[in-house]
Amino acid sequence: MHKLDAVLARLDAAEEEIRARYFDFLRIPSVSAQPAHAADCRRAAEWLARELREIGFTAEIRETAGHPAVVAHHPGPGTSAAPLLYYGHYDVQPAEPFELWTSPPFEPTLAEGRNGPVTVARGAVDDKGQVMTWLAAMRAWHDVAGSPPAPVRVLVEGEEEIGSPSLDAFLEEHAAELRRARAVVVSDTNMWDARTPAISARLRGMAYAQIDLFAASRDLHSGLYGGMALNPLNLLCRIIAQLHDAKGRVMLPGFYDEVPEVGGNLLAAWDSLGFDEARFLGDIGLSVPAGEEGLKPLVRQWARPTCDVNGIWGGYAGPGAKTVIAAEAHAKVSFRLVGDQDPNAVLDALEAFVKERLPADARAEVQRFSSAPPVVVPEDSEEVAAARRALAAEYGREAVLIGSGGSIPVVESFRRILGLDSVLMGFGLDDDQVHSPNEKFDWACLMHGARSHARLLAELAG
Amino acid sequence: MHKLDAVLARLDAAEEEIRARYFDFLRIPSVSAQPAHAADCRRAAEWLARELREIGFTAEIRETAGHPAVVAHHPGPGTSAAPLLYYGHYDVQPAEPFELWTSPPFEPTLAEGRNGPVTVARGAVDDKGQVMTWLAAMRAWHDVAGSPPAPVRVLVEGEEEIGSPSLDAFLEEHAAELRRARAVVVSDTNMWDARTPAISARLRGMAYAQIDLFAASRDLHSGLYGGMALNPLNLLCRIIAQLHDAKGRVMLPGFYDEVPEVGGNLLAAWDSLGFDEARFLGDIGLSVPAGEEGLKPLVRQWARPTCDVNGIWGGYAGPGAKTVIAAEAHAKVSFRLVGDQDPNAVLDALEAFVKERLPADARAEVQRFSSAPPVVVPEDSEEVAAARRALAAEYGREAVLIGSGGSIPVVESFRRILGLDSVLMGFGLDDDQVHSPNEKFDWACLMHGARSHARLLAELAG
Repeated sequence: MHKLDAVLARLDAAEEEIRARYFDFLRIPSVSAQPAHAADCRRAAEWLARELREIGFTAEIRETAGHPAVVAHHPGPGTSAAPLLYYGHYDVQPAEPFELWTSPPFEPTLAEGRNGPVTVARGAVDDKGQVMTWLAAMRAWHDVAGSPPAPVRVLVEGEEEIGSPSLDAFLEEHAAELRRARAVVVSDTNMWDARTPAISARLRGMAYAQIDLFAASRDLHSGLYGGMALNPLNLLCRIIAQLHDAKGRVMLPGFYDEVPEVGGNLLAAWDSLGFDEARFLGDIGLSVPAGEEGLKPLVRQWARPTCDVNGIWGGYAGPGAKTVIAAEAHAKVSFRLVGDQDPNAVLDALEAFVKERLPADARAEVQRFSSAPPVVVPEDSEEVAAARRALAAEYGREAVLIGSGGSIPVVESFRRILGLDSVLMGFGLDDDQVHSPNEKFDWACLMHGARSHARLLAELAG
Repeated sequence: MHKLDAVLARLDAAEEEIRARYFDFLRIPSVSAQPAHAADCRRAAEWLARELREIGFTAEIRETAGHPAVVAHHPGPGTSAAPLLYYGHYDVQPAEPFELWTSPPFEPTLAEGRNGPVTVARGAVDDKGQVMTWLAAMRAWHDVAGSPPAPVRVLVEGEEEIGSPSLDAFLEEHAAELRRARAVVVSDTNMWDARTPAISARLRGMAYAQIDLFAASRDLHSGLYGGMALNPLNLLCRIIAQLHDAKGRVMLPGFYDEVPEVGGNLLAAWDSLGFDEARFLGDIGLSVPAGEEGLKPLVRQWARPTCDVNGIWGGYAGPGAKTVIAAEAHAKVSFRLVGDQDPNAVLDALEAFVKERLPADARAEVQRFSSAPPVVVPEDSEEVAAARRALAAEYGREAVLIGSGGSIPVVESFRRILGLDSVLMGFGLDDDQVHSPNEKFDWACLMHGARSHARLLAELAG
């Protein structure tokens, strides 16, 4: 293991260089949801390809129906073993609302956080910072040993934040090439807390749609037409209000049919984690869990489906009073899914639910943006065992097996299309403000993450 | 009456000059709701003062707590009779959404309408075009006779579209000066149809508020927090949905206590007007009246209260999918009122209604923008009789007495503060798209309106 020690020492010595490369990556506003940033997405892909080539990878920009992907290969020390496939995404969420950022979202800034220095920027953790953890590990192996200790493949996509619409087709197109791998390594999840590493064993799925309601042929004066003309904003509120009952349960027919109850050992294991719900909510200024009544906190987060309005707009939103009845109303609505819930079936049910509630003169369109089935990954694979050893060695305590309320659609795609299981070894924290203004990543998380990845490569070299 | 004939002939001859002055007025984007247009509001006031001085008025810009008012006096031919007080407003509604205009809202354009040429511009009818009807009549009297045939006062405000927040204080401040008048003449209402003139005898009141809901201390990731964190957008929809029952009745406690039933002669008179509901709705792409069940159309429009959401916003409204739970949600909600409903009591009830429905962790603010009590004007005054004679002479048919779904707060203020009744003689049409994109005013309505005002001045000269 003296080689690994040299690699870890090299990582510690390279902090400044790692930060410089990381900040270059963060300065690229690769917002996949916004067409205006399409060129920035490509720049981020090209930046990654250059980084990988510098450390001995053959790296290519591969076109997709949407933003390009980066695919890279490194034979390692020349063993014939099947490579590890590292997955990440270079795209980030929109930074809006800009005015709530304490520093510009695409000018990474070092600040003092609860546990020491943190980097504040859009993408600081999700997923550019997490990609940097394994990228830095591979560079350190390159610097010290001339190559990673095992064959490595890399796939970084640019559409994760919009639900990876092009990825399945891309995996199918390149299946022959990508299928030959031991497992997929993904760093896009959280630790249990700043001191306790974690492997995520389950991810909620997602279904996301936009509801567009149309009524009159134009905006109307609320005095001359009030009481006569259908108001699509009131109608939209009425329909959305009916999506939940008084106990917080989602009212789409059959919504809970494929939702398993959590019990026995799993529930006991989750209870033993001692989740501090009061602190979790307190960090965001809340005190009472929303959603369904009478659930244990971790069950609520990891094992129950949800329905949230992510955005709503229509009519006049300017200063003061405008007495108008709008012609259109719009809302973005998403569902988190668990068990065997089928995202497409959920969106079918949503569309039917909306259309059944339309009065005469109203018209509705339901646009579908993205969907991902829920995922449960095997907890007993050789690669998960190796990851747990690497994390235990790095943190001096056992990694816990957790769930995640979020979704990583590609994990299910890797299994379905390539037959590959994933190892979800992530280094984010609950207070990273992912998808929010002032997203941050603890510097300690990045460095320990890089060291953990260096260890994992050594574990899997044999 | 040969003088009146000369004045009418002068009006007909002056069409081009009237249009030129009218278009100058329309080119000033005097949007009272938007602070960026404050200077434009003052420009509109100054434009009016210049116009009035040109035709012998002593005209002044008078400051208010908000946008300035224009007050002008003309002694007429020197009789000692109490003057007529002409009221109007130079401010206009915001023009948003700009992209739906077929021509720029502040570049007045002549187009071909259903009944001949129309002017398309924000304010074309409401209220700049209607102000032009009496302004042109006074100029014609000035050109032909050197002065209007009766003493005239003018008050034009710049805050009607935001609910005249400064006007009551202004009327109280200048009560001694303004109180001495026969009646108030207002042109800010509609004709019955393009061929049938009308006097409006009742106006609905209004109460307008903005609901701001606050939950978490920041925007959240809907995956990590979905099911745990209160979603203020869902909450806002739930509260707004509860504002109406399944029959379209407003659910604020006591809302209908002061709403009188319409029956007897009034109902018979309204029935005799033969309102074409199918055409009224068809013009805006609708077929079924919304709001309360089982009402006659004119009762619905003129004699029943309403509650409409005028705008709603929160969360992500950009392209594509953003999986965020917003920290705030906002809606603008307004009520049209009738009978003895008290706008402040209604807004008190709204605020209580919202706050009673807040779960723990949610906070609400209710901002009040404007309010106006409902108004019924006397139908038998000398001035109303004179207006009916003037309209009958101009149109060759009797003017009908109608209601209006809209509100003109100042009418109630004139009575309460100055003890003056109003004559609501307006020349708009139902299809003028007031407050909407492509607002228009029929050229024939403007010219017949000007001729009618010339006749009214003659009627009241004696």
